[in-house]
Amino acid sequence: MKVKKLKILLKKIFKKYGLKDNHATISSNALINAELVGAYGHGISRLKMYCDRLSKKVINPEPKIKIKKISNSISYIDANNSIGFVSADIGIKTAIKNAKKTGIGLVAIKNSGHYGLSGYYAEQAVKKNLVVMIYTNAPPAVAPHGALKSLFGTNPICFGTPTGSKIPFILDTSISLINRGKIRVAARYNKKIPKGVALDKFGNPTTNAKKALKGVQLPIAGYRGSGLAWMVDILSGVLTGGNHAGKVKDPFEDFTGPQNIGHLFFTFKTNLFQKNYNQRIKENIRTIKKLPKSKGVKEILYPGQNKFKRFKENSKKEIKVPKIIKKDLKLLLK
Amino acid sequence: MKVKKLKILLKKIFKKYGLKDNHATISSNALINAELVGAYGHGISRLKMYCDRLSKKVINPEPKIKIKKISNSISYIDANNSIGFVSADIGIKTAIKNAKKTGIGLVAIKNSGHYGLSGYYAEQAVKKNLVVMIYTNAPPAVAPHGALKSLFGTNPICFGTPTGSKIPFILDTSISLINRGKIRVAARYNKKIPKGVALDKFGNPTTNAKKALKGVQLPIAGYRGSGLAWMVDILSGVLTGGNHAGKVKDPFEDFTGPQNIGHLFFTFKTNLFQKNYNQRIKENIRTIKKLPKSKGVKEILYPGQNKFKRFKENSKKEIKVPKIIKKDLKLLLK
Repeated sequence: MKVKKLKILLKKIFKKYGLKDNHATISSNALINAELVGAYGHGISRLKMYCDRLSKKVINPEPKIKIKKISNSISYIDANNSIGFVSADIGIKTAIKNAKKTGIGLVAIKNSGHYGLSGYYAEQAVKKNLVVMIYTNAPPAVAPHGALKSLFGTNPICFGTPTGSKIPFILDTSISLINRGKIRVAARYNKKIPKGVALDKFGNPTTNAKKALKGVQLPIAGYRGSGLAWMVDILSGVLTGGNHAGKVKDPFEDFTGPQNIGHLFFTFKTNLFQKNYNQRIKENIRTIKKLPKSKGVKEILYPGQNKFKRFKENSKKEIKVPKIIKKDLKLLLK
Repeated sequence: MKVKKLKILLKKIFKKYGLKDNHATISSNALINAELVGAYGHGISRLKMYCDRLSKKVINPEPKIKIKKISNSISYIDANNSIGFVSADIGIKTAIKNAKKTGIGLVAIKNSGHYGLSGYYAEQAVKKNLVVMIYTNAPPAVAPHGALKSLFGTNPICFGTPTGSKIPFILDTSISLINRGKIRVAARYNKKIPKGVALDKFGNPTTNAKKALKGVQLPIAGYRGSGLAWMVDILSGVLTGGNHAGKVKDPFEDFTGPQNIGHLFFTFKTNLFQKNYNQRIKENIRTIKKLPKSKGVKEILYPGQNKFKRFKENSKKEIKVPKIIKKDLKLLLK
């Protein structure tokens, strides 16, 4: 399906499920972006879930979002359980505005929901020539180190910076060995997941995606990854007033209430300390790219390069809509 | 040796090598703290190195440290190649002052050196009831993902927060899978190193410590850890005006000039968004500690708990000074 056509369709569906025109646009754009960068677990495979939550009012289709100014640098947003895309859009725009004004921006959001890819919002700040860090938590998927039960989400750590070129440096890495969205997609298409990334509910290693969803995902790097996940839970949940300590509801499975997710956006100007930041980072990247390469490696890539390439390539093509999602679309349009 | 006696000795030595009284105190305290928390690689085993660098003037014993105020929140410090302990001490104190004033503090330092443990400075901010993040880079030890040569340092990521109890939450984690010192020890005793932590010079995985020393150490979590190390290199080096992209000199081996390390300190108040932060984080920790435990795990610990316990226990005892370091002390006092 052509990008343009799919976007119109998505917007129509979101509006049918109660979103205002501009909120439907923001949400459609985020889903399309996920498809184009190849993050299919965050793309149209989630559309039905969002619509289900909207129709059950556990996502508020008509939120009254309040932005509280704490200082010229710091803002606090109560998203009133809007769809996550909209609150994150306001959050990053506020963080950009604050940093442009004072050099530094810190924005916390509470009462939000799953917003897709952190990197998508990081890109917006990078395009405005800012360094950005974003934290959000997620439903239980990963066991804390020493525990036998999932509690942390895949809790991504996201960092972005301009590079002096058109391809931004966007690190957007979950602290689990595998993205939960990828397991969901695998489960949906009855595909296997890699070895060693998840356990079933009995604590045994599994490559069965459905069993993995009922079990535990493993954190990167043992106690180190567990500590990083805990940090993200504190920054995005404890600090902001969002849910934390395993209380974020699974958006696919738990419709008993809103997710109340918190997000934290931190932005600052690149040239606060060194006026020639772009030149410096160009030199940094150039030096690293010149290193001798491992077998089979054509080029040393910085985080975000692959995604940028996929985006460019996929933008020229039609978006493949799997049968199962075509069904969703039909059903949602009825 | 009693802590008090060792401290007097260290101070005497640092002063003999040209440090002012208060700089000698700060440096001695940092080394003693490393001993007490059991981070022996950052303790008195480094004393001789610091003195050697001082006597060769690649650490400036009489630095003229300049603090530039960018805004009430943001400061920029040129440490004039002071010993790292002193610049980091000024850095964290400035970041604390800024956050107390405006809610948020961002402090960059350039022309500094190795400062020991990030967690030591994080603790100072946490004691003032602030959340803190600290970044510093280090000499080459870890290969970027896809590269066959070390370039990133072990580049720690450090995060601290008050917990509502006397034991702070201090995550201070390097991004390498194994400490280089451990590989050196294994090589000396012809012992194997664990699988998957290092490559030989041809890029093949090895458990042979000698081959690993000639090859590269691997980052945690493959491309994810490599990305995190790169992030730290950018935040602490590119941004601040410090050395980056593998240019930080090994303090033990390279006396051709100062290290020019950069550090970044980011601090903010815990109650910017939620007034009952301490209550919230207490609840967070309590919930996680209550999870069912893995076999053999007595208690689920948060980052910093172990170190705190070691500090308390070791503070009651004398500090063990190995023979080889007693020799150093004698030599340095001559």
